[in-house]
Amino acid sequence: MILNGTEIANKIKENLKNEIESLKKMDINPKLVVFQVGENDASTIYIRNKQKACESVGIDFELVHLEENTSQKELENEILKKNQDPTVHGILVQSPLPKHMKEEQVFETILPEKDVDGFTTTNVGKLWNQKTGLISCTPKGVIRILKEYDIPIEGKHVVIIGRSNIVGKPLALLFLKENASVTILHSKSKEIAKITKEADILVSAVGKPNFVTKDMVKENAIVIDVGINRLDGKVIGDVDFLNVSPICSYITPVPKGVGPMTIAMILENVVISCNRKITKKGVQHD
Amino acid sequence: MILNGTEIANKIKENLKNEIESLKKMDINPKLVVFQVGENDASTIYIRNKQKACESVGIDFELVHLEENTSQKELENEILKKNQDPTVHGILVQSPLPKHMKEEQVFETILPEKDVDGFTTTNVGKLWNQKTGLISCTPKGVIRILKEYDIPIEGKHVVIIGRSNIVGKPLALLFLKENASVTILHSKSKEIAKITKEADILVSAVGKPNFVTKDMVKENAIVIDVGINRLDGKVIGDVDFLNVSPICSYITPVPKGVGPMTIAMILENVVISCNRKITKKGVQHD
Repeated sequence: MILNGTEIANKIKENLKNEIESLKKMDINPKLVVFQVGENDASTIYIRNKQKACESVGIDFELVHLEENTSQKELENEILKKNQDPTVHGILVQSPLPKHMKEEQVFETILPEKDVDGFTTTNVGKLWNQKTGLISCTPKGVIRILKEYDIPIEGKHVVIIGRSNIVGKPLALLFLKENASVTILHSKSKEIAKITKEADILVSAVGKPNFVTKDMVKENAIVIDVGINRLDGKVIGDVDFLNVSPICSYITPVPKGVGPMTIAMILENVVISCNRKITKKGVQHD
Repeated sequence: MILNGTEIANKIKENLKNEIESLKKMDINPKLVVFQVGENDASTIYIRNKQKACESVGIDFELVHLEENTSQKELENEILKKNQDPTVHGILVQSPLPKHMKEEQVFETILPEKDVDGFTTTNVGKLWNQKTGLISCTPKGVIRILKEYDIPIEGKHVVIIGRSNIVGKPLALLFLKENASVTILHSKSKEIAKITKEADILVSAVGKPNFVTKDMVKENAIVIDVGINRLDGKVIGDVDFLNVSPICSYITPVPKGVGPMTIAMILENVVISCNRKITKKGVQHD
């Protein structure tokens, strides 16, 4: 059975749209600001997708596009302005940044309450302590698609291939919170196939086409493909979908799997940021 | 082969003693402050052990013992004073705190540079990002004992039973940093024995006597016992040592395994805190 990320994402967006209408009646106009530095075709496409998604639910969108040779300090100053701007509820910095910048330092500049990517130390710390913070969108989207399909997670053995700060590590914490047993594998792991074959839920976040082959997957496993790889002008995942899908109980396709869920979670995080503002300080007018 | 924590800890302490002598020649007197609130016999023993360890290497030790009915605010104010005191290099708050206090909030009050337990969000964030911070002492001690015995970690499958913020989670990050494959199990995990039997390195941080039995351990595995349990007036670990030890390649005993390593790492963290002070701001006189 194919886990239809587009369908679930559309359902989530429909709900957000209604919620945003209610916010607007209280004179709150949810707004996302995205920072792009330099030119990168893939980044431009990702940003355009985010913009379209925002517009489709009624979130205001602003792109701050800076030149390649912008200094890190200048970028950070622009971010600080948006931190202070009460009309802005979410701030994203599009990765990759030019090589002369330290990404982690730049991300850390974002006010945690507006950090809709969940990358700041404060939000990672909240995830660590199982407190309410803004959670990284791709990991959040993975958990959500499983929940939307009523797939039980508790007690399951989850194997995640990939240990990045953006996907692997936060996803491990989220699965632990859902009471799964969690294994993290990576490029230095040995006997990968032996371990992945034990997985009830197998997540690949490697970035290599056809990395996950049939012999790595247990019969009736659930396979989540986080990979986005370009091959011969097509976007494909990490999983050899043709051969793996027949033996799975559930599988996410690429495209139309985790990708649209990630975008839906960005929108949701912007709305969460708006709602928190209401709960914390009473309604604030933008 | 038994991994002798006491012996390794003594070696580390001997080195620290020399390092501390050099610090003292620069008029820097390393100092640890421990906060205890209320009366708890186990806590009193733990604190006394820390005090003895400090004295054995030349670290000044101060116990701030507050009454059971101290308010959280009062405790936090006392911590803030030690944060500001330049003669103090390490601050520990002995757990458990009385029930009317929120431990996490109290820990968060400690200045990250003096947080020798590595519990603050800042230090967790540094561990997450593989930056240099103060690392939680028990996980650090586990990695150290393996390294001192020249046991290779890279590519090994490590299974950790226990997902606490103090042991399981930070230890998982440390093993990932060492390029091990890492599995985390816990009370809601299913088929625990099946998974632990795959472990090259098995770590138990459960807190139940004889939890790890022979049938859960692979032949020639390395077994690390983090448990400290009191049974019939004796201190024992989580592992059924008598039956498990014959099939392991290496095993830590309890006592004299991870326990003394934890204490040695506290001392090391105090010295790291002193050294940083020198590097960052030039030599400061206490």
